[in-house]
Amino acid sequence: MSAGRIRKEIDHALLTFVDRQRPGMLAIGDDLRPLLSALDALLAGGKRLRPAFCYWGWRAAGGEDIAAARGIAVAAASLELLQASALVHDDVMDASDTRRGRPSAHRRFEAVHREQGWRGASASFGEGAAILLGDLCLAWSAEMFDASGLDPEPLRRGREVFDLMRTEVICGQYLDMLESARGAGSVETALNVVEFKSAKYTIERPLHMGAELAGATPETVAALRAYGLPLGIAFQLRDDVLGVFGDPAETGKPAGDDLREGKRTVLVALALERATPAQAETVERGLGDTALTADGVAELRSIIEETGALDACEAMIDRYTARARDALAAAAVAPDAREALGDLAVAATARSV
Amino acid sequence: MSAGRIRKEIDHALLTFVDRQRPGMLAIGDDLRPLLSALDALLAGGKRLRPAFCYWGWRAAGGEDIAAARGIAVAAASLELLQASALVHDDVMDASDTRRGRPSAHRRFEAVHREQGWRGASASFGEGAAILLGDLCLAWSAEMFDASGLDPEPLRRGREVFDLMRTEVICGQYLDMLESARGAGSVETALNVVEFKSAKYTIERPLHMGAELAGATPETVAALRAYGLPLGIAFQLRDDVLGVFGDPAETGKPAGDDLREGKRTVLVALALERATPAQAETVERGLGDTALTADGVAELRSIIEETGALDACEAMIDRYTARARDALAAAAVAPDAREALGDLAVAATARSV
Repeated sequence: MSAGRIRKEIDHALLTFVDRQRPGMLAIGDDLRPLLSALDALLAGGKRLRPAFCYWGWRAAGGEDIAAARGIAVAAASLELLQASALVHDDVMDASDTRRGRPSAHRRFEAVHREQGWRGASASFGEGAAILLGDLCLAWSAEMFDASGLDPEPLRRGREVFDLMRTEVICGQYLDMLESARGAGSVETALNVVEFKSAKYTIERPLHMGAELAGATPETVAALRAYGLPLGIAFQLRDDVLGVFGDPAETGKPAGDDLREGKRTVLVALALERATPAQAETVERGLGDTALTADGVAELRSIIEETGALDACEAMIDRYTARARDALAAAAVAPDAREALGDLAVAATARSV
Repeated sequence: MSAGRIRKEIDHALLTFVDRQRPGMLAIGDDLRPLLSALDALLAGGKRLRPAFCYWGWRAAGGEDIAAARGIAVAAASLELLQASALVHDDVMDASDTRRGRPSAHRRFEAVHREQGWRGASASFGEGAAILLGDLCLAWSAEMFDASGLDPEPLRRGREVFDLMRTEVICGQYLDMLESARGAGSVETALNVVEFKSAKYTIERPLHMGAELAGATPETVAALRAYGLPLGIAFQLRDDVLGVFGDPAETGKPAGDDLREGKRTVLVALALERATPAQAETVERGLGDTALTADGVAELRSIIEETGALDACEAMIDRYTARARDALAAAAVAPDAREALGDLAVAATARSV
């Protein structure tokens, strides 16, 4: 089963679910169309990484091919609605203008408000609508998961993981925000945020959930999680590097946006740990400065390179990726799942998007 | 079973659930305490109206007493987490300073940020934290509902209603926001918002859900809904009147706050329908003016009274309440449920809070 075919099944499940909700929503009010369009635009993008890990967790634990078991496509695709919710709310919280190279949801609604010449502040309307859109996606993700039609007992076990990952990602986001606000974080505290906000949420828990849905043994679950957590950390570290050094055309975000948002990533913590007092002052001054110029971004980049933080971060990525590969090599999983999980490890940590 | 005893069971179920989540959250990070404190503060208040209607829907359909069937207390109490989510997000969207007479969640977090002298804008931190707190409550409400331990088939039927009411209330909130932004609404469009944002969400669906959880017949469900929808409309119309004419000491909100927020209630729509051009201009000018003085509020109140809008709104409340009472009289429900639902109808539409 090719990655393209799996993506097609995931997309199909997602679209089918949203299409089933559409008439009910429009019966409440025809004015709800903009909410649905914003959702459609949001779901059109994305790499479907979480559903893919969920599916391969399922296969690794002996679950049937996606063509034979449509239920897993539905359960896996529900993670994309959860992710949509996180992205929309995250963009409001970070006041991000773009997402995947297009205007963020709150900016879309803000633009509608402005074009229509409605009352009140356009920005507030945009944020309010985006908060509601995120709520809708969060509510629907659980509804979709439960509608998978999988057997009750594995569904209950998978649902426990689903519940856990929701709590973890919300708590991780809060800790991330706190880290930026406090500003005095270490590599260790930054890594804790990475673990809950990203590593578990993006890779470990989707795999874990897929395995539970297939009725996996505790050994298989443990083996997959031993692969998933370090890979998830490597994935986020790669994302942090791309957020500072990546090509805007590939990342879909303006260059240096992570720096302007004041994100306290592991990369930044590594740089501050190694910086001279003068360099540290420059980093502290530039970080979170929403008006940081291209020159300012370039200066921070130089410091991150000169201090050796970039090399240290790349070495961490290699180390965590190797740990994931070793865990996969030691795991007792079917050959095609092993191959797919190996490919996903490469894709999740690649130097370009 | 007294109302006080039912409330105690609901509170117990709510606290038990949150207490079970506490250690897991603190294991993610001790810094998550403020999220938990904000949630505790939020759940300490409130009239538990939705759980009460859910419970009496259950009893009306033949469900056992709460002391004998703890599962219904859990399912009913989960609606309080859903409501907590709606309140926290609503307060962010409306930039409300207070909730139930205490600082709103985003203002609490904002104050912490300011006191600690953290980086960035305190207001943004407060909003971000409140968005996450609301997300947590939304996620947990479904988790709590599913953990009720009720039988799978009625639980599935109840869950369908739960899912529906979440979509309805989110859509209703969007339409409400749209109504305020557009400003040119009618009594009819305002009533549509009331139906989905409030009447179904507060009364009809909780009753409906409780009845389904007890395995109600379609006839019982229909009878309860025929009572719940008009009562829910009357409840919201009463709330709208209190939002303009209520005693701040009782409503927990500053006098005239609904006017400053620019809420396009049925009461306001009735006033605009009846107003002279000069009166209409005054209303349109004052509505949504966050700096509206006490004199300004008093002027709008006078117009609402002089135009006859207040009397018309009171007449509507009486009409909808009577319709609910008639539906209840015609419904085949157990005597104690009939009595409790009659009492709840009085409480939900009383002239003081």
